[in-house]
Amino acid sequence: MQKLPDIQKNFPEWYQEVVYQAELSDNAPVRGCMVVRPYGWAIWENMRDYLDLRIKATGHENVAFPLLIPESFIKREAEHVKGFAPELAVVTHAGGKELEEPLVVRPTSETIFYFMFSKWIKSYRDLPLKLNQWASVVRWEMRPRPFIRSTEFFWQEGHTAHATFEEAQTEALLMLNEYVTLAQDHLAIPVLVGEKSASEKFAGAEKTYTFEGIMPDGKALQMGTSHMLSQSFAKAFEVKFQDQNGQMAYPYFTSWGATTRLVGALIMVHGDQNGLVLPPKVAPIQVVIIPILRGDLTEKNNIILAAQNLADQLKLAGVRVKLDLDEHKTPGAKFYKWELKGVPLRIELGPKDLAANQVILTDRLDSQKIVLAWPEIVTHVTNKLEFLQTEMFKRAEIKFKQNLATGTKLTEFGQELAGAGGAYQTGWCSSPDCEAQLKNYKASIRCVLAEKTQANCFNCAEFSKSDVIVAKSY
Amino acid sequence: MQKLPDIQKNFPEWYQEVVYQAELSDNAPVRGCMVVRPYGWAIWENMRDYLDLRIKATGHENVAFPLLIPESFIKREAEHVKGFAPELAVVTHAGGKELEEPLVVRPTSETIFYFMFSKWIKSYRDLPLKLNQWASVVRWEMRPRPFIRSTEFFWQEGHTAHATFEEAQTEALLMLNEYVTLAQDHLAIPVLVGEKSASEKFAGAEKTYTFEGIMPDGKALQMGTSHMLSQSFAKAFEVKFQDQNGQMAYPYFTSWGATTRLVGALIMVHGDQNGLVLPPKVAPIQVVIIPILRGDLTEKNNIILAAQNLADQLKLAGVRVKLDLDEHKTPGAKFYKWELKGVPLRIELGPKDLAANQVILTDRLDSQKIVLAWPEIVTHVTNKLEFLQTEMFKRAEIKFKQNLATGTKLTEFGQELAGAGGAYQTGWCSSPDCEAQLKNYKASIRCVLAEKTQANCFNCAEFSKSDVIVAKSY
Repeated sequence: MQKLPDIQKNFPEWYQEVVYQAELSDNAPVRGCMVVRPYGWAIWENMRDYLDLRIKATGHENVAFPLLIPESFIKREAEHVKGFAPELAVVTHAGGKELEEPLVVRPTSETIFYFMFSKWIKSYRDLPLKLNQWASVVRWEMRPRPFIRSTEFFWQEGHTAHATFEEAQTEALLMLNEYVTLAQDHLAIPVLVGEKSASEKFAGAEKTYTFEGIMPDGKALQMGTSHMLSQSFAKAFEVKFQDQNGQMAYPYFTSWGATTRLVGALIMVHGDQNGLVLPPKVAPIQVVIIPILRGDLTEKNNIILAAQNLADQLKLAGVRVKLDLDEHKTPGAKFYKWELKGVPLRIELGPKDLAANQVILTDRLDSQKIVLAWPEIVTHVTNKLEFLQTEMFKRAEIKFKQNLATGTKLTEFGQELAGAGGAYQTGWCSSPDCEAQLKNYKASIRCVLAEKTQANCFNCAEFSKSDVIVAKSY
Repeated sequence: MQKLPDIQKNFPEWYQEVVYQAELSDNAPVRGCMVVRPYGWAIWENMRDYLDLRIKATGHENVAFPLLIPESFIKREAEHVKGFAPELAVVTHAGGKELEEPLVVRPTSETIFYFMFSKWIKSYRDLPLKLNQWASVVRWEMRPRPFIRSTEFFWQEGHTAHATFEEAQTEALLMLNEYVTLAQDHLAIPVLVGEKSASEKFAGAEKTYTFEGIMPDGKALQMGTSHMLSQSFAKAFEVKFQDQNGQMAYPYFTSWGATTRLVGALIMVHGDQNGLVLPPKVAPIQVVIIPILRGDLTEKNNIILAAQNLADQLKLAGVRVKLDLDEHKTPGAKFYKWELKGVPLRIELGPKDLAANQVILTDRLDSQKIVLAWPEIVTHVTNKLEFLQTEMFKRAEIKFKQNLATGTKLTEFGQELAGAGGAYQTGWCSSPDCEAQLKNYKASIRCVLAEKTQANCFNCAEFSKSDVIVAKSY
C-alpha cells in the first residue's frame, strides 16, 4: 500500500487513490463504470436506509420500473430529448434479432413513469400519486470519476403527480428539505440551497431546486436536485384527470433524485492526509477493536475473550463494531488500514490494559488517545460518537464559510474565482448573457438564492434581480 | 372491477387478473417487462429484507456491479455463452457513436464478477470472498408472464470464491438451505429440494441445486437455484491464488439467486377465488381496520378516534396496520378490495361495536368472524397472525402432498402427468435418452433427490441410480 498523494497539492489524485485504497470502488471493465465494493456499498446502504425511511414517512411508495425505455418516449418532451440524447446507451438487438424500435437504457425515468401515469390517473381521487424507486441509471460520460461522475450510477428517483400547482410546489420543496437534512445531519456536510438558473435546470423542468456542497478545492458539487416539472410532461404523455368539478385537467408533476455522488461528497469534505474520515451516522464500522496480542497462549486468549465481550456490549448498545482478529496483520498495519477507511473510533486492548482493567480509545478526527476504565467504555463510546457527528459538521461548516465570499463585480473577484476557486454570493440581473460571462472564468451559477443582498448585477450595469452563488463545479 | 376468472377452470387467466386487479404489477410498454406497483414491491421488500439479513448473517457482503457487460466476457465460458446468447439484449450504440465492442445488459453477472475476482484474489488470505448484489437482469423472453417469467426481473445474486472444493460445496448447500427456510417459514410454501440433471443445470455450473414448489395446476415452479460452479469460470477468467504451500491454484466458485418469481409462487400457492391470501410474515398490511361510519358527526368522529387509537396500539405491538379512511368507498367495497389484496386480518368497528366496547375480526383464510372485547384485541391479533402463518404452511403442505405421487413406469403415469399434471417421484437410470422421453409428456426432471426408493428407471429396463421428481413446469 503506497502513501496517499498530498491532499493539498494533488487533491484529484488523492481522491482517486483514497477511493481505491480504502476499497470503496474499483474501475469496471466497462468505460466509466464502477464496481462498488463492500465498504463503499455499506456507506451507501446507510444513507439509503435513512432516506428510504423518510421517503416512506412522507407518504411515498416504492415501485420498480423497467430499465429499458422505448427510444420514442425520450423524444416526446422537446427539452428532455435535447438534454439526454447525447448521453444515451441504446439497445438495438435483443433475443438474436434487430429490434423494430431501439430501447434506451434509462438515463432517468420521467418518460416511462408518466406513460404509466396516463393509465393510472383518471380522476382527482387518483391524486396525489407519490412514487419512488431505487435503481441505477446510465449516462454516457466523457470524463468519468468514481462516485462523482460515473457512466452508471445508483440513486433513488421520486415521481409524483398532483392536482394543483401549489401542491406540487410544496412537494418539490418538501423533498429538497429532506435531502438537506440528510446532507447536514447525517453526512455532516453543510450545503447551499437554491434554484437553478434556466440554463442549468433539468431538461423538461419548470424549476430545479438544488443543494450543493463546497469541496476543499473550492469547487461546488451538486449533491442532488428536486424538480417542479409542472405540466410539460403531463401534456407530452397526455396524462389527464377529471377534477372535482368534472372538468378535465393536466396534473402537476415533480421528480427528485439523490445519487451515489453523495459518497463522493463525503470523501472529499471530510477526508484528510490519512484517508477517509466518516461521520458516525453513515460509517459502516463505528468502532474497531484491535487486540494487541502478546505473551503466552493463555494471555492471548484472555485478551481475545475480553475484546469479544466488549464487542458484544457495544453491539447491544446499538454500536456498529468490528473486532479485527486478522492473524496476518500487525497492530500497526491494522491502525493504518482502519484510519484509511475512516472508522470514527479505535479501541486498543493489550496485556497491560487488560491487567489495569482499561482500554485505549483513539478518535479518527483528532487522533486523541484517552485511557478508559472498563465500566465507562460503552457510555463514553456512544457519547463520543454523537459528539463526533456534531463536531464534524461544525468543522465542515467553518471550511464551508471560508470558501464562501461575497463578490460585487466579476471583474474584481473573477481572477480569484478562476484560480483558487471558492463560491461567491453576488447579484444577478437574470440575463443569460451575463451568466454566459462566467464561462470565461470556468465558473457557473450554482444556484439562485431566495434572499437578495446585492444591489447590482455581477456583470452589467443593471440592478440585480436575485442573489446567486457562482463557483467552479464538478 | 370485474369478478376474477374461475380459479379451478381458468387458472392462468385467474393469475393474470389477480396480479392486475390486486395492483401487484402492470404491463410495461417494453415487451415482456413489468412495472412492479407499490403493493407488489412491498411484498418483495419484505422477502428481500429478511433474505438480506440472512445473507449478511452468513458472512456475505453486498456490492454493486455494472449492468453492462462486454459481449466478449459472455463468450469466455463455453457452456455459459450457449445458455445465454439467445436471450441477450445488446447495446451497440452509446454517447452518439457505435461502440467498438457491443455491451450486453446483464442476464446474470458471473462473468463480470469473476473478471474482477481475477484482480482481487491473489493469495489464500483473500479467500473466501463472499459477495452478493441486489439488482435486475434482462433475458429476452418469448412467453413472458408477470413475476413468473418476465424479460427484466429483480433478484439477488451471490458470488463466492473458496480455496477448496469442499468449502464451496458447503457454501452452495448453505445458501440453498437459507432459501428453503425463506420459502417454508416465510412464504409458507413447501418445496422439493434436490439437484438438477445435467440437461437442466445452469450454463457453466458443475452442479445446480434447486428448490421448487408445486403449483395448484400441478406444474412445478423453480423458485431459486444455488450453483456449485467449481473451477470452470476460474479457468475461463484466469483467477488464480497462491495457496498456503506457495502453489498457484484455481479457486472454487459458487453462485446463487432468488428472484421476484417468489412473488408469483406466493400468489399461486395461496390464492383463492376472492384473490390473494398473503402469509402474515410477508404481507405489506397484516391488519386492515375498516370503520363503519354511521350516525351524526360526533358519532362518526368517535369511531374514527377509536379506530386510530387501535391502529396505534397495533403498530406499537409491531403489527403492520392500515386504517382505511377512504371517503369514496363503502365498507362493502373496502371489504372486497382488501380481500382481493389478501390482507390476513380485517377489523370492523361500527357504532354498535363502539358502544359494546368490541370489534369484529375476520380472517382472510377462512372468513371466520369473531367478536373481540377491546382489551384483548392486541394479544389476539398477534397470536392469530402467528397461527395463520403456521396454518397456511400446513394447508399448503396438504395440497403439496396431494400433488405428489410415486410413479414406477412412465407408460403408466405418463397420461396422468401430461393431463392433470402433478409431480411424480420415480427412479432414473441417469441416461439423457430416458430423460428425453419426458418431453412426449410435456414434462421434465425437476430435481434429482438424495434419497433412493425406486429400483428401476421410469423408462428403460436398467436399475435406477437415483430417485427423481418429474413434472410439467413453468
